Amino acid sequence: MRERALIAELLAPLATHRAARGLADDAAVWLPPLGRELVLTHDTIACGVHYLPGDPPSDVAWKLLAVNLSDLAAKGATPAAVLLGLTLGGHEDEAWLRAFAAGLGRALEHFEVALFGGDTVRWGGAAVLGCTAIGHVAPGRALSRGGARPGDELWVSGRIGEAGLGLAMAKGELRPEKRLLNRYRRPEPRLVLGRALAGVATAAMDVSDGLLIDAGRMAAASGAGVEIDLDAVPVAGAALAAVAAGDDYELLFAAPPGAGVAALATAKVPVTRIGHIVAEAGLRVRDGGAAVVPTRLGWEH
Amino acid sequence: MRERALIAELLAPLATHRAARGLADDAAVWLPPLGRELVLTHDTIACGVHYLPGDPPSDVAWKLLAVNLSDLAAKGATPAAVLLGLTLGGHEDEAWLRAFAAGLGRALEHFEVALFGGDTVRWGGAAVLGCTAIGHVAPGRALSRGGARPGDELWVSGRIGEAGLGLAMAKGELRPEKRLLNRYRRPEPRLVLGRALAGVATAAMDVSDGLLIDAGRMAAASGAGVEIDLDAVPVAGAALAAVAAGDDYELLFAAPPGAGVAALATAKVPVTRIGHIVAEAGLRVRDGGAAVVPTRLGWEH
Repeated sequence: MRERALIAELLAPLATHRAARGLADDAAVWLPPLGRELVLTHDTIACGVHYLPGDPPSDVAWKLLAVNLSDLAAKGATPAAVLLGLTLGGHEDEAWLRAFAAGLGRALEHFEVALFGGDTVRWGGAAVLGCTAIGHVAPGRALSRGGARPGDELWVSGRIGEAGLGLAMAKGELRPEKRLLNRYRRPEPRLVLGRALAGVATAAMDVSDGLLIDAGRMAAASGAGVEIDLDAVPVAGAALAAVAAGDDYELLFAAPPGAGVAALATAKVPVTRIGHIVAEAGLRVRDGGAAVVPTRLGWEH
Repeated sequence: MRERALIAELLAPLATHRAARGLADDAAVWLPPLGRELVLTHDTIACGVHYLPGDPPSDVAWKLLAVNLSDLAAKGATPAAVLLGLTLGGHEDEAWLRAFAAGLGRALEHFEVALFGGDTVRWGGAAVLGCTAIGHVAPGRALSRGGARPGDELWVSGRIGEAGLGLAMAKGELRPEKRLLNRYRRPEPRLVLGRALAGVATAAMDVSDGLLIDAGRMAAASGAGVEIDLDAVPVAGAALAAVAAGDDYELLFAAPPGAGVAALATAKVPVTRIGHIVAEAGLRVRDGGAAVVPTRLGWEH
């Protein structure tokens, strides 16, 4: 399938927002929402690195959007639009592309995000899929990973380590379970929680490389330290493996005691207090009072 | 060089705009200019497809920005910021990366564009470099390729075919000349001309795939046809090869007679009338009155 046909037949019908100009004009023209700050992020997923060649194409489309919208969620932003850079190889034949586009359409609709444009390239290598996501937030209300203060409680959403189990299943190392496979292939950006945290949390980020490594980064960015109670972390599987597994795309956030964070939990997205921010720099992990020295913190790129 | 060091040492120092948050926060937070429409575009360049592995890394950085800013120029927009998705292979060693970052810094400064963020990925394949560029324009003034009307004159900036000669030189097929090599490796987005055309031209686009194919696309998008006088086209080398060569990143635009377009020419960027828009659909090429049927129109992806 040539670039022109791919864009005209499969992608243009998804670009229904007026700003996208039907993908016929090399650029989108958009009047951003008045009185809002924009939040902009770009994440790339590469075949064989961030997803497996055998992953269903519709799940790959979902993941491409979801990992980007997760960054917007961590800022407390409301997603508005995406631009995609699709570099496609021989593996991505017409059937793959049709399934990808169908899944992309469903994901755009699910997340209420407009496809503003992008680029497609055909080459001999494996697929590299880039996405720029744009959201908006009330001025001054965007969360950062650098605002945590000593005395803040540290919280996490969802259950940590499930995507790691899902990855092991996708690789054939564990007996597959659909729910856990989906946690790896179809992460759920915590957009509703993120918006609720704007103005409540002092710091937030999404957990993509592993709970421990990401908590250490939040503490460092905040000029503080962090203590995590391993016992308290809601984990799937072995605790030390779970807190070093990536791809969960849950939100990790800090808030002062009494900020009312527990009330933001829903049946689908629980929130759990797992530690607190301390003045002394560094990451400390405790397990029922005893200090633990993890052999691995997460994915260090 | 690991992702973290690459970002912290080489890219973060380039991200001086407050909105970029020092590239430390997974997303940029930006208050867009009040009362302006945003223009957004994404183009990807892949090693071996859009540039050659032996091209100087600083030129690759320039080209990555330039091809994107060229799309903004064609809309009459003023560039504001870029986000980059850099997927890098073994060829891009530390020396390459340092030269790339240095060239990127110079290009950002030259174009007065802020680096807002992005993503870096290490993998085993060749490099894939994505860029999302964001600019702004007065509301309702963005140009499109679809606004040309029968009777409009068709104009082009610069000299067509020079980048094609530069590519042949870069591949060793012609004796190298620095000026023409630069036309391929360091295209100059026609930003000043583009801004001047907003409100004057009826349609505009950049010439990336070849003058003839792109003129045909403008005509089709405008629901019209186009007649080109080959004699009038300012070409480098053989006329029929030049008008089918890509990568010139000159502006092709339509304007009614008497719109004063000729006055927009500068010594560095001439503009030349090369034909006109007609009611009957299709592309017609004439050479001193006689109809010509080109065997090739340009790069069809």
